[in-house]
Amino acid sequence: MTGMRIISLFSGMALTGILSIPALAADCDSLTGEWTNAINGSPTLIITEVEDISGHLRGQFTSPSGTAGEAFALTGWVVESEPDRADDVVPALTFSVRFTPYGSVSAWSGTCRILDGVPTIETIWHLTRSHGDYDWDHQLTGTDVFVPVVSD
Amino acid sequence: MTGMRIISLFSGMALTGILSIPALAADCDSLTGEWTNAINGSPTLIITEVEDISGHLRGQFTSPSGTAGEAFALTGWVVESEPDRADDVVPALTFSVRFTPYGSVSAWSGTCRILDGVPTIETIWHLTRSHGDYDWDHQLTGTDVFVPVVSD
Amino acid sequence: MTGMRIISLFSGMALTGILSIPALAADCDSLTGEWTNAINGSPTLIITEVEDISGHLRGQFTSPSGTAGEAFALTGWVVESEPDRADDVVPALTFSVRFTPYGSVSAWSGTCRILDGVPTIETIWHLTRSHGDYDWDHQLTGTDVFVPVVSD
Amino acid sequence: MTGMRIISLFSGMALTGILSIPALAADCDSLTGEWTNAINGSPTLIITEVEDISGHLRGQFTSPSGTAGEAFALTGWVVESEPDRADDVVPALTFSVRFTPYGSVSAWSGTCRILDGVPTIETIWHLTRSHGDYDWDHQLTGTDVFVPVVSD
Repeated sequence: MTGMRIISLFSGMALTGILSIPALAADCDSLTGEWTNAINGSPTLIITEVEDISGHLRGQFTSPSGTAGEAFALTGWVVESEPDRADDVVPALTFSVRFTPYGSVSAWSGTCRILDGVPTIETIWHLTRSHGDYDWDHQLTGTDVFVPVVSD
Repeated sequence: MTGMRIISLFSGMALTGILSIPALAADCDSLTGEWTNAINGSPTLIITEVEDISGHLRGQFTSPSGTAGEAFALTGWVVESEPDRADDVVPALTFSVRFTPYGSVSAWSGTCRILDGVPTIETIWHLTRSHGDYDWDHQLTGTDVFVPVVSD
Repeated sequence: MTGMRIISLFSGMALTGILSIPALAADCDSLTGEWTNAINGSPTLIITEVEDISGHLRGQFTSPSGTAGEAFALTGWVVESEPDRADDVVPALTFSVRFTPYGSVSAWSGTCRILDGVPTIETIWHLTRSHGDYDWDHQLTGTDVFVPVVSD
Repeated sequence: MTGMRIISLFSGMALTGILSIPALAADCDSLTGEWTNAINGSPTLIITEVEDISGHLRGQFTSPSGTAGEAFALTGWVVESEPDRADDVVPALTFSVRFTPYGSVSAWSGTCRILDGVPTIETIWHLTRSHGDYDWDHQLTGTDVFVPVVSD
């Protein structure tokens, strides 16, 4: 599906004589780009760099719910296995941010796979707050699903 | 703050004529240093750098169980809150590594607090494998507790 | 409350002469019924009973992936809060099963809310195996989303 | 270690002519009994019944931190594997409660193993609240470690 869409895009470019190369949407093989929540378009995950050898990720994360909408630097890793290693092989990734004004850090962990033709990053996160009412209520957990942002 | 304390310490040392520089043990206010499992001395977490303004962590992680004992680069964050923000205020941190030859990434999330007089990093981790038997068995979870390594 | 509603429904049916009894779809206010995975129709969660006062859940769980498709008894709890207690109030629930032939137990935890008009149980699970290669690889984690099965 | 202690106890009973049978402390092979937090003696987990065939657990849970100290009914499961199934075989268990007046449910998942001679239940829990400030802050996570209460 994704491949089909890209092919159509290039066909269109040829027909209309466009020379500039459009930004290709992020996908599971090339995480660089903009991702957003599958349901309501937030939060937004921007992966600006994936180091070739180390798999080190860099980028930015924004979430309008519970913050003022500012961007936070993210750091993390992606890893892949040989396709014949197991029955189900997909990129695995983790990334984390510091929500400085909110006194918390958050780490997302998950995989990227094609679901219904759409590259989809499915994650579980741990958000750890430096402030709590008790010694046992510092960590929240939840899920986020990200799909590529398709620019017009 | 940490820098100030180190300066004072060195001043004191100069005054008393001590020449050898002792290894300062890591603690919750100054995470830099070597940490290890509270029970059996592994895995080992070495935090080599904490950036002052960003709270960005860098270091190395080694775990003899399930690996060949090699060191893996880690990246992450630490954050603190004002002491009067809540009833229980402690540093919150997260860090992650890529276990490259094992096709997995892992993220630890938790807090640092003094327990029985010992600085203790209590974490929950998510280890995500790029290879699975099914689409639902890629993520393991567990806990790690780290205390400072006291050198002789 | 649920009992009252069923009585009213049957009264209405008697008045209009309808003879066949339609299956009532499960929803967030009345969890009893059949739920299944939002994406591919498995696994299946059947809640057969919700005790009024205690909120104790009973039912069955089946998952064709990684099992032979047999049903496993489930036990758990649901709880609600007063609607004015906080900005976001939804039923919270947890349920667990023993996958006897596979040597594991699993617990799901989450909430039920209407998403795009559909009652949706969003959960994170912990699957704990009694057998591992190491002392640290006994627990898997993941997510399941359930929506009501609509019978024809 | 546990076996040694029981033998000494029975020897002492014979010597002093005690006829009543003392409550044996809980252990990993026989979970029935009272367990408490390894560090500060709370919360307390009382397992009153383990059904032989199904592995169904029943009991009570109390936690003085964040509650009024009342007991809550618990339900769950324990499972074991054949000792030769894998390198590390230990009982796996899960149990859950409804904290009715607090509008939340909680599920613990983990294993029981002998650590330093003491039967130890190590768990990770998910506490899910029916009330939140946002749709993403309903779930807390953390850990609890339980050891048998030794009665005097």
